[in-house]
Amino acid sequence: KGIKLSTSHSHRKVTTKVFYCRANYMNFYISPFPDLLPTCNGEITTMSFLQDVVDILLQYVVKSFDRSTKVIDFHYPNELLQEYNWELADQPQTLEEILLNCRTTLKYAIKTGHPRYFNQLSTGLDMVGLAADWLTSAANTNMFTYEIAPVFVLLEYVTLRKMREMVGWPGGCGDGIFSPGGAISNMYAMLIARFKMFPEVKEKGMAAIPRLVAFTSEHSHFSVKKGAAALGIGTDSVILIRCDERGKMIPSDLERRIVEAKQKGFVPFLVSATAGTTVYGAFDPLIAIADICKKYKIWMHVDGAWGGGLLMSRKHKWKLNGIERANSVTWNPHKMMGVPLQCSALLVREEGLMQSCNQMHASYLFQQDKHYDLSYDTGDKALQCGRHVDVFKLWLMWRAKGTTGFEAQIDKCLELAEYLYNKIKNREGYEMVFDGKPQHTNVCFWYIPPSLRGMEDSEERTSRLMKVAPVIKARMMEYGTTMVSYQPLGDKVNFFRMVISNPAATHQDIDFLIDEIERLGQDL
Amino acid sequence: KGIKLSTSHSHRKVTTKVFYCRANYMNFYISPFPDLLPTCNGEITTMSFLQDVVDILLQYVVKSFDRSTKVIDFHYPNELLQEYNWELADQPQTLEEILLNCRTTLKYAIKTGHPRYFNQLSTGLDMVGLAADWLTSAANTNMFTYEIAPVFVLLEYVTLRKMREMVGWPGGCGDGIFSPGGAISNMYAMLIARFKMFPEVKEKGMAAIPRLVAFTSEHSHFSVKKGAAALGIGTDSVILIRCDERGKMIPSDLERRIVEAKQKGFVPFLVSATAGTTVYGAFDPLIAIADICKKYKIWMHVDGAWGGGLLMSRKHKWKLNGIERANSVTWNPHKMMGVPLQCSALLVREEGLMQSCNQMHASYLFQQDKHYDLSYDTGDKALQCGRHVDVFKLWLMWRAKGTTGFEAQIDKCLELAEYLYNKIKNREGYEMVFDGKPQHTNVCFWYIPPSLRGMEDSEERTSRLMKVAPVIKARMMEYGTTMVSYQPLGDKVNFFRMVISNPAATHQDIDFLIDEIERLGQDL
Repeated sequence: KGIKLSTSHSHRKVTTKVFYCRANYMNFYISPFPDLLPTCNGEITTMSFLQDVVDILLQYVVKSFDRSTKVIDFHYPNELLQEYNWELADQPQTLEEILLNCRTTLKYAIKTGHPRYFNQLSTGLDMVGLAADWLTSAANTNMFTYEIAPVFVLLEYVTLRKMREMVGWPGGCGDGIFSPGGAISNMYAMLIARFKMFPEVKEKGMAAIPRLVAFTSEHSHFSVKKGAAALGIGTDSVILIRCDERGKMIPSDLERRIVEAKQKGFVPFLVSATAGTTVYGAFDPLIAIADICKKYKIWMHVDGAWGGGLLMSRKHKWKLNGIERANSVTWNPHKMMGVPLQCSALLVREEGLMQSCNQMHASYLFQQDKHYDLSYDTGDKALQCGRHVDVFKLWLMWRAKGTTGFEAQIDKCLELAEYLYNKIKNREGYEMVFDGKPQHTNVCFWYIPPSLRGMEDSEERTSRLMKVAPVIKARMMEYGTTMVSYQPLGDKVNFFRMVISNPAATHQDIDFLIDEIERLGQDL
Repeated sequence: KGIKLSTSHSHRKVTTKVFYCRANYMNFYISPFPDLLPTCNGEITTMSFLQDVVDILLQYVVKSFDRSTKVIDFHYPNELLQEYNWELADQPQTLEEILLNCRTTLKYAIKTGHPRYFNQLSTGLDMVGLAADWLTSAANTNMFTYEIAPVFVLLEYVTLRKMREMVGWPGGCGDGIFSPGGAISNMYAMLIARFKMFPEVKEKGMAAIPRLVAFTSEHSHFSVKKGAAALGIGTDSVILIRCDERGKMIPSDLERRIVEAKQKGFVPFLVSATAGTTVYGAFDPLIAIADICKKYKIWMHVDGAWGGGLLMSRKHKWKLNGIERANSVTWNPHKMMGVPLQCSALLVREEGLMQSCNQMHASYLFQQDKHYDLSYDTGDKALQCGRHVDVFKLWLMWRAKGTTGFEAQIDKCLELAEYLYNKIKNREGYEMVFDGKPQHTNVCFWYIPPSLRGMEDSEERTSRLMKVAPVIKARMMEYGTTMVSYQPLGDKVNFFRMVISNPAATHQDIDFLIDEIERLGQDL
């Protein structure tokens, strides 16, 4: 471990020597950055400044993967506000102070690439993805027209087509867009499904169409309800379908509730099935759901924000069988594929529908007499006007790894989840939240401290067990050694939800997590 | 200009020598990046690879500001698809190929920081902003909880409060969020305004509430209609208020249409005034509009996506007088303040409303028994679940420039627009689209080629004039010398809309633009 830091240091020393001019701006500071580009002759200071920032970032990156460093140097909000002056002022700071701001910000940041950071569905830090994001920042453009983002518009086209191929739509035909996160992708699906059934809603609003209802499982992501609230459908019109004990939607319950809704005069317009639920990592039975959607002529959406990545794996993609029958699919490469945040795709089987649904023909943006093929001006498909370039990091990582590289990375994470499951399923002090091998990398369990072991199921036990995970989690953060999420679900009190999406994690990190839970929880 | 390139080259040579290990990965390539982090001992290769990427980016950045380079090396979509193989494959590429991908991508990219790129409201490339965006990528986290973004959540708090202070809300009180662009910010405003008036809409949908109508000017941004379509209100319920010849909303027409709508039984719930329209750069009369909103108890939103930046200028902020009476404000620092894309804030005067409107209480995300002050878990305010960190680049630039630095930058751009206006208002071959000094940096004009000068107003003249701007624009892109936007508006045929938001632009660049228009258009 000493090697890493000294490598980083020697690198720093060398570059400091080479860039003899680097410190210039500290001595000759007068007004806001007289020496930085675009100021005339600002090249040298600019390169030195950016190189200094890069040196800070490279050190941070190397440290992120170093198990001897903390995942987080946690401070409470009030502490953090007092530790440093974060306020904005009238007067400029020096570039030296700007570098200090960067160092301080990183000092208190979570190292999301750390091999023992298991807290979110998005973990890890991919080096090619990082490079691609840096390039995206330097290119600093917007996705709405080919005119201002020629390469990125083409790469979006190429990448979305490839993703649709993996979904199983013939020739990768269809449509799609990269959107700012899975919640927005799911909202798009709902918006398009509504428009497909009642195109007049665009002009006339919900007042002109019948009362709609959507269906999703009780384990689905909360964004389905959030979308329904925003779109004027209302959360009461999202009917939650029961799940089996593994968290999978029960198709017979879906059909029953569809029939019931129709009898009440409501119009079922969308079923949102989940491929990889947030907590259990469950895959809804897509084939059975597709049959029901076909029978009742309902738009089938698959929220594969978390599980979509498994399409890259020949070993695991069967879990999404039936997804090729969906009308739309959400798939977040920033989760299981480790692409830097944010990168979420909405894929739509019918071409042109997004455009009809969302276009407003603003002549100041989408001039119709331009000199190139206007089908590449894709911006009017989106709700956004400006749209960040989210595709390049996925595209570059895909080039770098190939589909087989993503496959290997994903298979490895699933293998680690199985390792964890096998390790704790019969271990003293653990109870699994549901039986059986995990389908995704979600492993849900209670840690039972010695004082609760053997105690009969009772209100007292439940109320004590409820407090175990929060205390262990708080201690993890105080020590900064690891982080894993917990939550209650339905009648189940707080349990740990372990997920693995970081290819940096190893068997030893899983072992470490278990040791750490026991170390921090044994006295509870 | 030679100095710039040779500086950049010598920098490159030196670093290539110093990092003797840099090329290692090209010789010992076996499987997907055996030597990159998180692989054990991957530090050296990682640092070399990232340093190589940074060298490519630094060259690009320096070139971006070099007037002797092209703004764009334009290729038609089909050409670009043939010039290079952009496809995604099963097998990985080498790191050497990845670097080539980066170079090729940048070769065909628009140099949005180029001093002669005037095409969009967002132009320029700020060096501190770029550094901040690079740091954001390396930190690779998500804005929904304090737990996983402690510093960024605090910086959002500090920055939004400061922005509300500039709007004029006492003590900076209120609420807000950074959202993925102005269109989404405007949609949020509409969503919150509707919820404020009819909170039951969240559960019951539009079916349970009266027919709503919103008002905005005929020059307003298309996102108001887009939002209305998405939210189930319908575009027909967005009533477009007439503008004066400068593009400002006419308050008496607003009041007339409100009264009319009420008489028809509709419920006016929102007026979206514009501070800085997209084409004319007009500022609606906010005080008169505020009076009307107060009288009829309607939510007043100000879309200051483009004009909000003028709040930083003591000289120009009077144009937004009355904004302090708004209920919500959209303000995009990625436009007039030159923050890298994307950075858009929605500010809301009433605290807590966003939370009530959007929260879904997902227990797996927002655990209520955590060990810190949960008011910092701001994610449930948003429609997004994952939310990109957009605040850091604004915060770091603000620290670096101070409010006074932003002010100087904005005043300079406005001064340049006035210079352009003065230069062409009486120049042969130019007609202004509207009379008078520009209020923002928008300068709208027709270039009249010699063949059309002196020709009487006729159908033939109109139809020939319509084609002038598109041809000049196409030629600009073919030569790659400059880029400026054009569009028709109402009964006005294609005219140039010049905007200046890049502090790199100078008087000479404005002179160059005029010379170039004349060079490229004189034969038309």
